[in-house]
Amino acid sequence: MDKIFYPESVAVIGASEKPDNLAAGIIRNLIAFGYAGAVHVVGLRAGQVHGIPIVASVDALPDGIDLAVILTPAATVPDLLAACGRKGIRWAVIESGGFAEFSEAGRELEEKISAIARRWGIRFVGPNCISVINMENGLCLPFARIQAEAAKLGPVSVLAQSGGVSITYLILLSESGLGANKLVSMGNKADLDEVDYLTYLLEDSGTEVVSLYLESIEEGRRLLELAASSSKPIIVQKANRGAASAQIAFSHTAALANDERIVDTAMRQAGVARVATFDEAVALAQGFSLPPVNGDDLLIISRSGGHAVVAADVAEARDFRLMSVPDDFLAEVRSLFRADVITPTNPLDLGAIFNFDLYSRIVEKSLHELDPHALLLVHTYSAGPEAEASRRLARRLGELSRELEKPLAFCAFAQRDEVEALKAQTSLPIFTEIEAAVRALAASRDRRTHPARLLPLPSPSGDRLDKVEALLAPEGVLSLDAALDLSAAYDIPVAEWAVVQDVESVLFAAGAIGYPVALKGLSAEVSHKSDASLVKLDLTNAEELQDAFAALLVALREYDADPSSRRVMVQQMVSEGHEVIVGGRRDPSFGPVVMFGLGGIHVEILEDVAFRLAPLVREEAERMVDEVQGSRLLYGHRGQPPADVDSIVDVLLSMSRLLVACPEIEEIDVNPLIVFEGGGAAVDARAIVRRQKT
Amino acid sequence: MDKIFYPESVAVIGASEKPDNLAAGIIRNLIAFGYAGAVHVVGLRAGQVHGIPIVASVDALPDGIDLAVILTPAATVPDLLAACGRKGIRWAVIESGGFAEFSEAGRELEEKISAIARRWGIRFVGPNCISVINMENGLCLPFARIQAEAAKLGPVSVLAQSGGVSITYLILLSESGLGANKLVSMGNKADLDEVDYLTYLLEDSGTEVVSLYLESIEEGRRLLELAASSSKPIIVQKANRGAASAQIAFSHTAALANDERIVDTAMRQAGVARVATFDEAVALAQGFSLPPVNGDDLLIISRSGGHAVVAADVAEARDFRLMSVPDDFLAEVRSLFRADVITPTNPLDLGAIFNFDLYSRIVEKSLHELDPHALLLVHTYSAGPEAEASRRLARRLGELSRELEKPLAFCAFAQRDEVEALKAQTSLPIFTEIEAAVRALAASRDRRTHPARLLPLPSPSGDRLDKVEALLAPEGVLSLDAALDLSAAYDIPVAEWAVVQDVESVLFAAGAIGYPVALKGLSAEVSHKSDASLVKLDLTNAEELQDAFAALLVALREYDADPSSRRVMVQQMVSEGHEVIVGGRRDPSFGPVVMFGLGGIHVEILEDVAFRLAPLVREEAERMVDEVQGSRLLYGHRGQPPADVDSIVDVLLSMSRLLVACPEIEEIDVNPLIVFEGGGAAVDARAIVRRQKT
Repeated sequence: MDKIFYPESVAVIGASEKPDNLAAGIIRNLIAFGYAGAVHVVGLRAGQVHGIPIVASVDALPDGIDLAVILTPAATVPDLLAACGRKGIRWAVIESGGFAEFSEAGRELEEKISAIARRWGIRFVGPNCISVINMENGLCLPFARIQAEAAKLGPVSVLAQSGGVSITYLILLSESGLGANKLVSMGNKADLDEVDYLTYLLEDSGTEVVSLYLESIEEGRRLLELAASSSKPIIVQKANRGAASAQIAFSHTAALANDERIVDTAMRQAGVARVATFDEAVALAQGFSLPPVNGDDLLIISRSGGHAVVAADVAEARDFRLMSVPDDFLAEVRSLFRADVITPTNPLDLGAIFNFDLYSRIVEKSLHELDPHALLLVHTYSAGPEAEASRRLARRLGELSRELEKPLAFCAFAQRDEVEALKAQTSLPIFTEIEAAVRALAASRDRRTHPARLLPLPSPSGDRLDKVEALLAPEGVLSLDAALDLSAAYDIPVAEWAVVQDVESVLFAAGAIGYPVALKGLSAEVSHKSDASLVKLDLTNAEELQDAFAALLVALREYDADPSSRRVMVQQMVSEGHEVIVGGRRDPSFGPVVMFGLGGIHVEILEDVAFRLAPLVREEAERMVDEVQGSRLLYGHRGQPPADVDSIVDVLLSMSRLLVACPEIEEIDVNPLIVFEGGGAAVDARAIVRRQKT
Repeated sequence: MDKIFYPESVAVIGASEKPDNLAAGIIRNLIAFGYAGAVHVVGLRAGQVHGIPIVASVDALPDGIDLAVILTPAATVPDLLAACGRKGIRWAVIESGGFAEFSEAGRELEEKISAIARRWGIRFVGPNCISVINMENGLCLPFARIQAEAAKLGPVSVLAQSGGVSITYLILLSESGLGANKLVSMGNKADLDEVDYLTYLLEDSGTEVVSLYLESIEEGRRLLELAASSSKPIIVQKANRGAASAQIAFSHTAALANDERIVDTAMRQAGVARVATFDEAVALAQGFSLPPVNGDDLLIISRSGGHAVVAADVAEARDFRLMSVPDDFLAEVRSLFRADVITPTNPLDLGAIFNFDLYSRIVEKSLHELDPHALLLVHTYSAGPEAEASRRLARRLGELSRELEKPLAFCAFAQRDEVEALKAQTSLPIFTEIEAAVRALAASRDRRTHPARLLPLPSPSGDRLDKVEALLAPEGVLSLDAALDLSAAYDIPVAEWAVVQDVESVLFAAGAIGYPVALKGLSAEVSHKSDASLVKLDLTNAEELQDAFAALLVALREYDADPSSRRVMVQQMVSEGHEVIVGGRRDPSFGPVVMFGLGGIHVEILEDVAFRLAPLVREEAERMVDEVQGSRLLYGHRGQPPADVDSIVDVLLSMSRLLVACPEIEEIDVNPLIVFEGGGAAVDARAIVRRQKT
């Protein structure tokens, strides 16, 4: 993909001398950004654009061109792309709009260009994008005017589904002082997609941090497995939150499984930092440019007591610990105060030190002698005499931070011009809001203390059991006995049961299982059996059992016309214990997802649930249980016996195995799993089988 | 208080020629900000400061000085303040630190200056502050250097507990383009406090919006009643969140009543907009400078599809509705597109219009013809040819917004310099982050759609009932019968009961009440009776009753040595229904607070509770019930009968009356109140009486 980011020659197709010609903007940007490669122009009318002569056709171009950039009406793109193919051009950027994003005819056109590209071995960016900027070589291919002065070379590369957003990122990253490396506006991703670009950027030597702006995630699993394997920090701004959640609806588990919650879970599992705003993305990139934060001990130094209080609030909210500072250090600092009116602690309020050199020495001393995992300096100052001293301080701290490998978030409060001047003077990122600085430190810490825990999805065949083949053969909703058999096959404990069709077998089975028992009428047509009158609980003797069986056979008539297909489950009653739900679903983008929640109102009314992508490791399964607020009930509440939480964790791991081994399972709920002091037992389950298209 | 903000003459006490003298900074600031009144200087050594001669003592000052500004070591302040008193100076600003914030000795010194001030009728700002800035007349009294160029006159006044924060607000408000009016750094508030300043600012003609930065709220009730009565928007940044919540601990209700949750509730009730960061405060002030947002219908216009998606997400999160745009309007817009590649809707993506005049006309047309409650314009542009057109657009929209009284949030994405230039060209506030713009519009809307609903606290005597006097006479924990009597006195329905001491009375009472009954041993020493073995439930006949009574008498021996004081309550069993908790507490800052939650795990484990300051109006009581997530259970879930929610609302209103009428009640819980289909009944209650100091 080097040809896209480092082409030696570019042909811009669609330019003209007309003042409102869009493709001419591409040439203007290439010149403004100092692109040194050869630039050719193809257009319908003769003439020249920014001094470059227009040739009339792709065929008229010289041979050996690395990259074609096409910005012409959508209908003309197929022929032009084919011409590129004939000319031996193997890489293209298609900026034109009017494809799948616009209409059915556009979608067909998009398929057509994909086919042409495949035929000629062309890989392409877009369509419907403003394409690629590489700050390293001045390759600036958007048609929209971009001010070269506003763009700074730096370590952050950006993948954005939106062209406008990619330019906003370029400006914000540049103005933050950090700078951008490579930016791609991916458009419709008809060929190359975020996984392709990310693969490239993770190997790219100029890229140290990658920030993605996404409106949809189709290949979520691939993207996140890639991210999880990366040593470079990855930031994701995922938009289209409202619409996404509204579009998808599943029954029960899935209805709760708001897509966005899975996106959140998946990103955390992959060690990806999710952000909500542009500013937050830039702040995190700033934080990732510092030495890593290896723990929770934070030292806050401030020249303003109020800013120190705000910083302490924010630090607590982000789970930092205000490290305790040794008394002798504090005593020494106090001895330096101009007026003895502040008692030093952490946050270290240096408001009583008006001598800037002294103040700077204390900050340096703190970095040297104390050993915080991170230092937050909230530096309020004014233009005038404090300005030069502040710049000196920022320069010095930049050197020191690198030398000592200590992360230092420098948060400057002064006039904007002054802060801008400060940025130009130091290698440190300069923050201008305390919340942003602490958020950035926290993201850096989280990468260390909660590393990626997203395992690659193993092959289903690895853990496929022969006995499940028959169960998974039919499509649709599994019957209760099949769902329980499937669960049991993957070591999920189930209450003892038997399926019978006549009264003698009922009595025999109940005798074998032991009273009390439950009876459940089986029918594939009713998925929520408790809503129908097909369940009879707590039958304590043969008489009750016979009556209940007779009633069930009557009720089953509504579902099954054929008496021989009316079946009844006799099941051990498990009434003592905590009801929990263990579920699974197959997310279209992220693959198998395990769900955990407490039974009854906890899931249905309070939506107190946790999700994780499978395969699960034990530690993540334990975290799932802890994440659910109601789980505190499992440890015994007001005299109730505690539940065997380890056995829940076992079931979550079993569910994960099941989902991985059986890709036909679209959705499964063990609900409830009743958990008591020494284990648990599933008493109800449902599953939906959907054969995948091959 | 005009003398503090508009003095005709100021004496600065504590200045000298020494280069590091702090008080000299006050004089420098007064000159830099163009203060036109007379400035006098008092100092120990002869000389002059910025051309003003130093006089040796307060006595040597001319008569008739309006305001003294003192910045000398704390120990010298009492004498200097007394000297001011003798000189007839009645208003002072004490900037010195080293008082109550620092040490016990400092606290005594602070009491001393308060006493001196009272003796001489002096009102003062501080101590321990950087005091007052009035942008209207250049009165700039902080000792820290402030750049006059960085400060812009505008409609927002600021009250800040921290001096550094007040300067940060000054800079941010000025750079936002909005500007500041009056700023007070209040310091220790030994005399004048936020209620005094706010009272002044709400009458001040130059102040249109007030923003407060507070680290503690002592007079929360007075402050919020004042805020609730104001027509000017009020913004509060309340810091010191972590520490505050950790310091206070109460049993049960109070333990859940995290102080910060009451702060949140109280502010919402008072119609105050609470913010978390400086930037958010400034964004809200910008929003309040627009015509008010009268509803939820939002129109979003953007030149970038990506920014439009982000805006739609944020709008949905802030409960805006994307208004539907008539087809003929959309058709007309579409006919103007350069390339027909975008289908217009709301958000209206005008990315396909490259002609700026046309684009501007569509925005204007939308304001004129559509009738959104607010318009969010996300305007991405680049320096160069688009810059002048963008400024023209911003100017024109500023006029139009005022003319049509339509709020328009102009969110600009361009290079920083360009955005700065834009701000100077328009009366519109310019936002630079979509989240901030939508947050600001939402705050303006919330002021309209959720106006303040904090009623003044009426006099207890208004609703005081004779029959409660005896109940409230003793201090400490009330016995169950007293707590139920108190509840019943204020119309909270209670299960029928009688208190007995011998077995004949037990049998008689149970007969009168009707079986089944409960027995409860009464003792002031046990507050959570269900934890002891003093409760016997569901006694269905005389035999069970007698056995239970005998057992209770034995159990009561542990608590009451005197047999004659062992008492037992016979109570009607109310077992069918939903358990809820209605509580009350007296918050030290905000006064009486009503609490609502569901029983059992909902309050104790899930912390799913709602609070409101009393007195409650019915609509707020209804909102309390709705706010509790578990309340959905009350409307009937999986076949359970619904609860009489109206009767819960009645009890909340009764609890509010009780708390207002009985200020001795420090804490009270009706727990549980059992609510069924046709009403409710309290079966347990506890209350703590604490006589207030008079």
